[in-house]
Amino acid sequence: MTIALNETHDPALASWVSSANDTASDFPIQNLPFGVFRRAGSDEPLRGGVAIGDQVLDLAALHGSALDAQFDDTARAALALAARDTLNDFMAAGPAAWSALRLALSRFVRADAPAHPELLVPQTQAEYALPARIGDYTDFYTSIHHATAVGRLFRPDEPLLPNYKWVPIGYHGRASSIGVSGQAFRRPQGQTRPATGGTVPHFGPSKRLDYELEVGIFIGTGNADGEPIPVAEADEHVFGLCLLNDWSARDLQAWEYQPLGPFLAKNFASTISPWIVTTEALAPYRAAWRRDAADPQPLSYLDYPALRETGAFDIELEVLLQTAAMRAAGQAPATISRSNFRDSYWSVAQMVAHHTVNGCGLRPGDLLGSGTQSGPEPEAAGSLLELTGGGKQSIALPNGEQRTFLEDGDTVVLRARAVRAGLPRIGFGEAAGTVLAAR
Amino acid sequence: MTIALNETHDPALASWVSSANDTASDFPIQNLPFGVFRRAGSDEPLRGGVAIGDQVLDLAALHGSALDAQFDDTARAALALAARDTLNDFMAAGPAAWSALRLALSRFVRADAPAHPELLVPQTQAEYALPARIGDYTDFYTSIHHATAVGRLFRPDEPLLPNYKWVPIGYHGRASSIGVSGQAFRRPQGQTRPATGGTVPHFGPSKRLDYELEVGIFIGTGNADGEPIPVAEADEHVFGLCLLNDWSARDLQAWEYQPLGPFLAKNFASTISPWIVTTEALAPYRAAWRRDAADPQPLSYLDYPALRETGAFDIELEVLLQTAAMRAAGQAPATISRSNFRDSYWSVAQMVAHHTVNGCGLRPGDLLGSGTQSGPEPEAAGSLLELTGGGKQSIALPNGEQRTFLEDGDTVVLRARAVRAGLPRIGFGEAAGTVLAAR
Repeated sequence: MTIALNETHDPALASWVSSANDTASDFPIQNLPFGVFRRAGSDEPLRGGVAIGDQVLDLAALHGSALDAQFDDTARAALALAARDTLNDFMAAGPAAWSALRLALSRFVRADAPAHPELLVPQTQAEYALPARIGDYTDFYTSIHHATAVGRLFRPDEPLLPNYKWVPIGYHGRASSIGVSGQAFRRPQGQTRPATGGTVPHFGPSKRLDYELEVGIFIGTGNADGEPIPVAEADEHVFGLCLLNDWSARDLQAWEYQPLGPFLAKNFASTISPWIVTTEALAPYRAAWRRDAADPQPLSYLDYPALRETGAFDIELEVLLQTAAMRAAGQAPATISRSNFRDSYWSVAQMVAHHTVNGCGLRPGDLLGSGTQSGPEPEAAGSLLELTGGGKQSIALPNGEQRTFLEDGDTVVLRARAVRAGLPRIGFGEAAGTVLAAR
Repeated sequence: MTIALNETHDPALASWVSSANDTASDFPIQNLPFGVFRRAGSDEPLRGGVAIGDQVLDLAALHGSALDAQFDDTARAALALAARDTLNDFMAAGPAAWSALRLALSRFVRADAPAHPELLVPQTQAEYALPARIGDYTDFYTSIHHATAVGRLFRPDEPLLPNYKWVPIGYHGRASSIGVSGQAFRRPQGQTRPATGGTVPHFGPSKRLDYELEVGIFIGTGNADGEPIPVAEADEHVFGLCLLNDWSARDLQAWEYQPLGPFLAKNFASTISPWIVTTEALAPYRAAWRRDAADPQPLSYLDYPALRETGAFDIELEVLLQTAAMRAAGQAPATISRSNFRDSYWSVAQMVAHHTVNGCGLRPGDLLGSGTQSGPEPEAAGSLLELTGGGKQSIALPNGEQRTFLEDGDTVVLRARAVRAGLPRIGFGEAAGTVLAAR
């Protein structure tokens, strides 16, 4: 299933929010991503908002005004849900509700509609909360380039395990430590592998702290326990995408991860962007999902006709780093790698279908991580572990500083945008997080 | 920290709920476990209850009566929280609140107090919900006997990995599929390993469906992100224990689990008992935690003086199986194995301290699983995988049926009790679950 293009995608649309008409904005009128916000430092209630240009359209204020009288019933009911302090109920309402509200909001902020600046809050004055109550968080491992590069470091004899090309590998992550952009966390401490020849593990702050560049996938409508979601219907269950930094302590991970997977190496913090870009907004930026003819083709529960036409998303991903010294000197974060979600070995629909094929129930607001998105080229690696060859070659920053792994005070910023010639840029805002010194 | 014994533990106490005075009852007045219930088949609101004999003391009814006027302020405030439709707020209130309410309830149901049968609901007429909203579920792997036996099947060359004796191995599980006793679930389907010599995995219903005998650990008060819980204080953060069946599809697990751990092999269903036995009720049944002198002793963040005196819990665990044929013939479930939580390689406090040592925040109502509790003897194995040597030797049931793994219609029942000479039996009720045919 692919969402048909409609008037909300029209590249000619402009908004009475003039900053949305800037071609450099992440949030043109064709985007309309959802989040949860309030004025920074206030004790206002959290409520739903939509990013438009450099503003937030306050959905609670809109809902509280009489202005939604012009909306159709579906859109008005959806607005009431989207105005709440989490988006879970709106997510649960399903694609017809999401689409109706998107259309109504698109018409509401168009250049030819009456301006309502009283419903806007400047993004510079906003603070964000997690957009949904995340019941369960599952992290996948969908980049074969990442899996191969990391596998080579952890298991030189067998970098890519025999199941990789058949199974969209995933595992459960920690929901409680997911924070929104701006999250700062202490460097984790824990056990690491004994020195060569030794038997006693080391204990202390992680020395190999890393980021992971991921796409987050918010589930909209779930499924009943025991009822798998067919892959051809899976996209309809996806509310939208965000950015996700799955911070990782590589030295903790190497010692703890066998046989049951990463645990303390990951669960101290994960950072998402405040805005969820809906799958409907991304419809014009879908791309062919490709599988090399020499590779196994997906089993039937992971295959469907539209997969090879529009199964992927063409989303440019970027990692930027700002050290404490750069911040002190007023230097902007520097790009350290770029990749594209299009190169994922498994698609979003395949992740959803696989997750539920055993009957596992997904719930509105559940978050799936794509796994680190590394591209085919070495410089497109989505983690320092890969960029530095396991910490062997440091990377140079514009101010002359070097990094193998993250230092205290480092801020990592993830950004993303869907770009297509003739179409506006659909941006994701950013997911920024900062490493604090260990306790 | 060990909870001091107090008047609620007095073995001489009896109750006006006469069934509680039966020495065979799981729920004497010294137990007083908490759960959430309503009358079966009704649309009554869910509310907190305490098991006493064969009855449930209705905490919402007690709270709604004037009878709690005799409680002290702490107990009365705690009752208001414990009467809600989940126990999370009561759990968050902390040990002083838990203890005050336990004392007040103990006095309220004593034989010399006025009887209030109008506040009771017979357990035969009750249905249960999950006692808490489980934000995150983490499963540990604390039985070295289980880890060794399973490791031998999955990795004959290296059954016990080098980290096992240093790290309380754990991983994240799925919260959404945790159900309360009585849960029935479809046999999961999924990919399994290609046949020897083949390359294409098989897809279909699991043929090696298993149970796992575990103790569930409900977190009471949590910790702030970034602030580890010291091991000596960890017991104070534990609200209580329950039974947990971590159903496992061994054939799915064998194919999917590398490198990131079990996923679809586990997340289709997990079943807990409705009653949470508080750590205070279990105080008289604590036991020495032992570590063989030839083994590494715990790192300092996992060690504290009281560990070797009272770090463990002496809880007898039991698995029973009732096949569809047994049920049709009116035959009771048959015991197929027994073990004791005392034999766990890692203690509850060590699990909590390890989980948070990297700064991971625990929340009230989070559930930890102990991992399968297998004893040192082969017949004390906590799973069919172990009891049958990986499915090679079937076990015989009293009616002549054989099992290697679970068949459709099988009901697995977990039971447990803390027993000590001269003290009443503190039972856990049961966690029963039934396998339905694949979809």
